[in-house]
Amino acid sequence: MRNRILGCIALLAVFATANAQNTDEVQLKKIYDEALTNGKAYHWLNHLSNQIGGRLSGSIQAQQAVDYTKMQLDSLGLDKVWLQPVMVPKWVRGVPEFAYFETTPGITTDVPICALGGSIATPQQGIKANIIEVNGIQELSKLGREKIEGKIVFLNQAMDATEINTFAAYSGCSGNRYLGAKEASAYGAVGVIVRSLNLRLDDYPHTGSMSYDDLPVADRIPAAAISTNAAELLSTSLKLNPEIKFFFKQNCKQFDDVQSFNVIGEITGSTYPDEIIVVGGHLDSWDLGDGSHDDGAGSVQSMEVLSLLKKTGYKPKRTIRAVLFMNEENGLRGGLKYAEVANTNNEKHIFALESDAGGFTPRGFSFSCPPENLKQAQGWATLFEPYFIHLFVEGYAGADINPLKNDEIVLAGLRPDSQRYFDHHHAENDAFEHINKRELQLGAASMASLVYLFDTYGITVAKDK
Amino acid sequence: MRNRILGCIALLAVFATANAQNTDEVQLKKIYDEALTNGKAYHWLNHLSNQIGGRLSGSIQAQQAVDYTKMQLDSLGLDKVWLQPVMVPKWVRGVPEFAYFETTPGITTDVPICALGGSIATPQQGIKANIIEVNGIQELSKLGREKIEGKIVFLNQAMDATEINTFAAYSGCSGNRYLGAKEASAYGAVGVIVRSLNLRLDDYPHTGSMSYDDLPVADRIPAAAISTNAAELLSTSLKLNPEIKFFFKQNCKQFDDVQSFNVIGEITGSTYPDEIIVVGGHLDSWDLGDGSHDDGAGSVQSMEVLSLLKKTGYKPKRTIRAVLFMNEENGLRGGLKYAEVANTNNEKHIFALESDAGGFTPRGFSFSCPPENLKQAQGWATLFEPYFIHLFVEGYAGADINPLKNDEIVLAGLRPDSQRYFDHHHAENDAFEHINKRELQLGAASMASLVYLFDTYGITVAKDK
Repeated sequence: MRNRILGCIALLAVFATANAQNTDEVQLKKIYDEALTNGKAYHWLNHLSNQIGGRLSGSIQAQQAVDYTKMQLDSLGLDKVWLQPVMVPKWVRGVPEFAYFETTPGITTDVPICALGGSIATPQQGIKANIIEVNGIQELSKLGREKIEGKIVFLNQAMDATEINTFAAYSGCSGNRYLGAKEASAYGAVGVIVRSLNLRLDDYPHTGSMSYDDLPVADRIPAAAISTNAAELLSTSLKLNPEIKFFFKQNCKQFDDVQSFNVIGEITGSTYPDEIIVVGGHLDSWDLGDGSHDDGAGSVQSMEVLSLLKKTGYKPKRTIRAVLFMNEENGLRGGLKYAEVANTNNEKHIFALESDAGGFTPRGFSFSCPPENLKQAQGWATLFEPYFIHLFVEGYAGADINPLKNDEIVLAGLRPDSQRYFDHHHAENDAFEHINKRELQLGAASMASLVYLFDTYGITVAKDK
Repeated sequence: MRNRILGCIALLAVFATANAQNTDEVQLKKIYDEALTNGKAYHWLNHLSNQIGGRLSGSIQAQQAVDYTKMQLDSLGLDKVWLQPVMVPKWVRGVPEFAYFETTPGITTDVPICALGGSIATPQQGIKANIIEVNGIQELSKLGREKIEGKIVFLNQAMDATEINTFAAYSGCSGNRYLGAKEASAYGAVGVIVRSLNLRLDDYPHTGSMSYDDLPVADRIPAAAISTNAAELLSTSLKLNPEIKFFFKQNCKQFDDVQSFNVIGEITGSTYPDEIIVVGGHLDSWDLGDGSHDDGAGSVQSMEVLSLLKKTGYKPKRTIRAVLFMNEENGLRGGLKYAEVANTNNEKHIFALESDAGGFTPRGFSFSCPPENLKQAQGWATLFEPYFIHLFVEGYAGADINPLKNDEIVLAGLRPDSQRYFDHHHAENDAFEHINKRELQLGAASMASLVYLFDTYGITVAKDK
């Protein structure tokens, strides 16, 4: 008899699990169907990209993006929508940069460059000097002051094409951009030209943040990125004639910090309102393109998560917030402020998901969390298979949510296909025409599905089992 | 003692397996590295697309493509390169098509259309008639002759956006394009306008093959595709005014069959030269775009497979052929001819792999084969994980290799990401600018890797175990 009862209980448990599995399957299908047929993310992004454009922190466009996304969140019938004040840096590019190299006096070749974000200007008349090529900052010490002083340093390290995950290739040489000016200045360089972080050969210079760190103002030198095609041409020309002179001129400027905002929308949890789930992207972008992939995509996908949960009739047990962070690109002030306020208010965040790797076809998620929670997420992998979502791996989650990290939160990042991302990253061609509606919407649906699962099961399930 | 010996044997077996695994890992890494750093596929495709362009069977461009790819294969140092003669149909679009709809006499709206491949022309002065909208050919019988006779039938079935695999959505309504004219003719229609098989709303009409089957010449009516934007506009306008007249004019024409060729390159097997592995794509394309995705990509990837195996120093045990099939789009004559000749010559084909689903990021492979061979391929899945190749599924392999199907061959198809494919398929915007070099090269490397594995292990391993 006891065996029979145990058998029945076991059978009931199987049914319960099968039933839960089935409920989850049904909910995911609802989410994906809604995203692919009536999703709003693409429409929102069209406005952000084509009506507003590049949204550098402190710019009028950044404020317009705050106003627009707040208005759209207001229209979703959420429980709460608000702006979280945050002071942000304001760096302005100024008039378009200009550069050429001179092989013999009077014979010049114009090359496309752009100032790196945070760089100082050149003197008004520009800088003209000999230029010395090195592969990366790690090679500066080999040359030493003797060979570098008075020259412009040309950091020409190419991204490693054999990395399948292009973000790994990016990490492999982003130090040249971020610290090149500081490092080259120590050897007496008068300027820095960095090869654009782009796996493709083309004519777009790619900007991005750089830092002088604690370098005294007097020692700071201007830094710019050069397109990959021009980098190749310059490198070849230097091999033929090491005496080439390089000229560049830029009048970018750092202003005082200005007021800006994170934009936040919330569905308050029905059962555990104090357990908070965040889904986010960053609203600011670089100024050269319209910021469609970086990170208009993540912003509208995060808004879409709330919209999809509402439109599929799902009532979250926990509080779910979409946070559009300000100033990821050149300061991370929004991410830091959000974590600071959460901390001050003793808020308990259990899960945060960021989308900041482009609006391409989603391939899965990377998790920064205890092993048992990664295992919990991997347990849902079969639910995602019909949507061709295969990656549930350990890894970096995202810059904006990283300040929330502690032992009790699961951080995750959407992992879209990365092959095309650095063709567009921080360049003029990060433009809406390179967004595919279905890919963008599939990303939003994947995020909403993972949020649904963490909301339904919480993050302690794996430990309880 | 016996146990010890058995133990040693078991240990040796483990070492042998681990060693083989390691050899395979090393070879795959070599293939991918070579493809991503020195691959030629993108370069070849640039020539096919930008120097030659659309390559419809029987056209000068198709012949130029034969000559160019033969020359390139010749340059690879293969054991054998040849042209396999095949007669192909020659259909010519003629002058650009023209269409408009007229809401009230004299008030017209031009709409973008293109003749379907194989369609007859309209009378020289065009056709003007009332137009009746139906969702798909399955609804024609509900309307019956009374409502259709003398009218143009407008088949406006949209592809199902909720299908994650867009090829499934394509299959769901491609019958309208292929058989629409035949079916509508049975009810007395005078012409057929088909909504383009495109998941996106845009202004490109998408062509593709259609058939009158056994319909007597006198009963044949002209058929054209209309862009998705225009289909939406026409549909809305018809709801407001069912009396709208539609006009279209096209002067396409079918000529007698002409001589063409499959282009074939071969590395002869060192150990089992009589066991043949084929890797292929089709060299012909529609005429509206430059055929970069359909199927210039598959053609150059197939050539690249041979190049990658050679450049990585791999000596195939079996004979490996790249076959660039002619006339997949409107006749499949190349695929049929290749199988016919293989049959006549009693050739033993053990594995055939086709790439005809675009040059996008590869996601895996679909297999049409006995279950044990699918299992064999699935056993290699971990080798592909570092390259984000996850799909090893049962499914359709490809039109060109399908005539080779028998009980002793494994057929497989490369499965690239499908989200963008039908944005470009058979339309003017199937153009080289929409090819990403890394995605294309990753596809070629994935194909070369699978060919390497089938060459190394044959296809009977699973049965022998």
